[in-house]
Amino acid sequence: MPKKSFFKPKSPLIFIIFFAFLFILTLYFTLFNTPFHNSSTNDVLGSVRVEKNGNFGKVRIFMYDLPRKFTYGVVESYAKARGGVKEGEEGKYPGNQHMGEWHLFRDLNRVSDERGGSAVVRVMDPEKADLFYVPFFSSLSLVANPIRPGDPEGGRSVVDYSDEEMQEELVQWLEEQIYWKRNNGWDHVFICQDPNALYKVVDRVKNGILLVSDFGRLSRTQASLVKDVILPYAHRINTYNGEVGIEDRNTLLFFMGQRFRKEGGKVRDMLFKVLEKEKDVLVKHGTQSRESRREATRGMHTSKFCLHPAGDTPSACRLFDAIVSLCIPVIVSDYIELPFEDVIDYRKIAVFVDTKTAIKPGYLVLLLRKVKPDRILNFQKELRKVKRYFDYDDPDGTVNEIWRQVSLKLPLVKLMINRDNRLVLRNLPEPDCSCLCSNQSGIHTTL
Amino acid sequence: MPKKSFFKPKSPLIFIIFFAFLFILTLYFTLFNTPFHNSSTNDVLGSVRVEKNGNFGKVRIFMYDLPRKFTYGVVESYAKARGGVKEGEEGKYPGNQHMGEWHLFRDLNRVSDERGGSAVVRVMDPEKADLFYVPFFSSLSLVANPIRPGDPEGGRSVVDYSDEEMQEELVQWLEEQIYWKRNNGWDHVFICQDPNALYKVVDRVKNGILLVSDFGRLSRTQASLVKDVILPYAHRINTYNGEVGIEDRNTLLFFMGQRFRKEGGKVRDMLFKVLEKEKDVLVKHGTQSRESRREATRGMHTSKFCLHPAGDTPSACRLFDAIVSLCIPVIVSDYIELPFEDVIDYRKIAVFVDTKTAIKPGYLVLLLRKVKPDRILNFQKELRKVKRYFDYDDPDGTVNEIWRQVSLKLPLVKLMINRDNRLVLRNLPEPDCSCLCSNQSGIHTTL
Repeated sequence: MPKKSFFKPKSPLIFIIFFAFLFILTLYFTLFNTPFHNSSTNDVLGSVRVEKNGNFGKVRIFMYDLPRKFTYGVVESYAKARGGVKEGEEGKYPGNQHMGEWHLFRDLNRVSDERGGSAVVRVMDPEKADLFYVPFFSSLSLVANPIRPGDPEGGRSVVDYSDEEMQEELVQWLEEQIYWKRNNGWDHVFICQDPNALYKVVDRVKNGILLVSDFGRLSRTQASLVKDVILPYAHRINTYNGEVGIEDRNTLLFFMGQRFRKEGGKVRDMLFKVLEKEKDVLVKHGTQSRESRREATRGMHTSKFCLHPAGDTPSACRLFDAIVSLCIPVIVSDYIELPFEDVIDYRKIAVFVDTKTAIKPGYLVLLLRKVKPDRILNFQKELRKVKRYFDYDDPDGTVNEIWRQVSLKLPLVKLMINRDNRLVLRNLPEPDCSCLCSNQSGIHTTL
Repeated sequence: MPKKSFFKPKSPLIFIIFFAFLFILTLYFTLFNTPFHNSSTNDVLGSVRVEKNGNFGKVRIFMYDLPRKFTYGVVESYAKARGGVKEGEEGKYPGNQHMGEWHLFRDLNRVSDERGGSAVVRVMDPEKADLFYVPFFSSLSLVANPIRPGDPEGGRSVVDYSDEEMQEELVQWLEEQIYWKRNNGWDHVFICQDPNALYKVVDRVKNGILLVSDFGRLSRTQASLVKDVILPYAHRINTYNGEVGIEDRNTLLFFMGQRFRKEGGKVRDMLFKVLEKEKDVLVKHGTQSRESRREATRGMHTSKFCLHPAGDTPSACRLFDAIVSLCIPVIVSDYIELPFEDVIDYRKIAVFVDTKTAIKPGYLVLLLRKVKPDRILNFQKELRKVKRYFDYDDPDGTVNEIWRQVSLKLPLVKLMINRDNRLVLRNLPEPDCSCLCSNQSGIHTTL
């Protein structure tokens, strides 16, 4: 009588069924992330779901399938203007400091299984999207065509490729999309990592979330810390993989780069003047080349501090080269904005000095020489902790953090969409801006 | 040989152990919310954990144990100034439209088991806190002392209680706290729901997240949509619990309240003039009293539309009374900011008309009379969906949503803290503000 034995008390089968049931139930709650407590904030009206974990709580992003000329087409134009595509390198994005656009594009093109750690999930149906990503390679487009008239390879391509036309055509294309028109662009994401990228059309796309390097060429109504995301440059010199320590770092302060720049970068020449005669300081004028990258790598890996003065705009790739070199950045750039500053306390990994103080003869070297070895080691340890945020190739590095930052903007995006749609005519005395204003006093140095 | 039988293949015990193991493992992942995928964004430097669910991902809030006079003491002073505490009502916060401060205080005082659905978890150790809540009853304090000189009960208490002194003493107390000094107040949360609450000290606490009704009495550098949270007033008339429908709603448009107000409220007299002679419109001058609340309840429960003109400031309790009455709000208040606008699309539950258009004779009634019954039903259905957001007593209502809104501010709070601490002296041409600027064109009406 098997039936009877099945219901026999203490039968192991009952335990099996019981535990199997418990297991399935728990698995259900885990996988579908159903909260045990009632917290159904998600039922109505295009709700924001950023507060939740798991797929169902992730921000959903739709990547536009742009006409090919805006993505791979730019890569091809770039190669063509430089003597054609080498065999085996078709569609290969050229390495450069503004290549975040490539990393984000490639990331969203990965299969979803590989994107488990990301804060955004790609959806193929725009109806289901919270945000829309426009993957135009705007930074590469800016330099696709060598602009130097004397460039031996530039002649033909000047005719073929115009970045300004590309920008214009991109916006024309967008303005025909229903999802662009629907919310005035508030829910669109653009990458323009080169400070000049998209310069011609930025006023028409400014409602979107802009992924930028700094605000040097952008006005206050075009971009801000509140609406946009500051990206790190892709570092161009090799990561330092050795141990923390000062034994092999005999140079106190290192800088290599262009001495003469415009605007904020004028400080460079002044810094050269006060630094170039100091022993244990290495400052060198140099332009971009494979050889100078090698030399910079050597310099940054064997120095305790690395100088980061402003360039034409407040930011530059050098800062991120220093970070991955565990060379403590000395930032002399009063208006710099820094990537991911909600999760990174830069005072722990860098030294800030205001420009006016930094150019006082003798001040900077004296300040740095006084830093005790223990303190240097602490800086290096902190640098090592945050290094992954500056590595676009790390599976849990820059790319994931950029998407997390983007996903945090969603509540404000939804707010602005809803609010804009119901605003009535008003007699406004000034622009309608919501601001976050910071403490205006500043310090001479964080050291 | 029991041992042998234990390892016998196909023994049910093996299944029991296997499933029990799986169950425990899954339970572990569920309870401790350990992600299956690697997404450890939380390991360094005071990271923000809002993107995660579960206790470990919730924003941690510390509620100051303020001197008693700032909480229950205010309630007692209020009662004393009105003839003393009635028996059995000791410590009972008096019902009023600004009683959000009481609901938040009470909520954080609940045991953590009852707060499972909340976006914030209360911590008793300030070292573990992301945010600090200052539970001063600032709105009740403002009215604790009847200010009318002729008030028969006011005489004695004028001497006893001074709201201005209380505000001053609160800030003095705060300024001695290490957690206040540590981050310049950026991570502190204040409630000042009455537009005049904290008016004397708001400049000294403006870095904090302010929980307010509107920005009518606050300057752009004191408060904004980006930094602060707009709260709904606590509704003062009863919720309508009947079905959606227009059969029992014969009045087209209802308004009851003070006809004459200052500033933005001047529109009221003009609206009275264009509306008071319309049949099927009921506009009545009336001040706060139990009787007029009863009358307003009747009116709002039997009207299709409820007028919401600006008062002295852009917001008023009446809007929220209308919402819980399923009476479609007609908002004539050009500068109003609305609670929780990231999750609520107010065009679905209310009609917006700009002031200039609304006071044109005949315009408003004509507009509303043209709305078809189906459309009215749709508005009512949407109102019912969002009603809980305006109910402070709903276990998943206003209180939970306020904390969710507060928790969303944390990334910007952390950003401002880190950024402020490293800013060097700059030659700023204007205040250092990050802004979100909205489309400045507006429409005449959303209908």
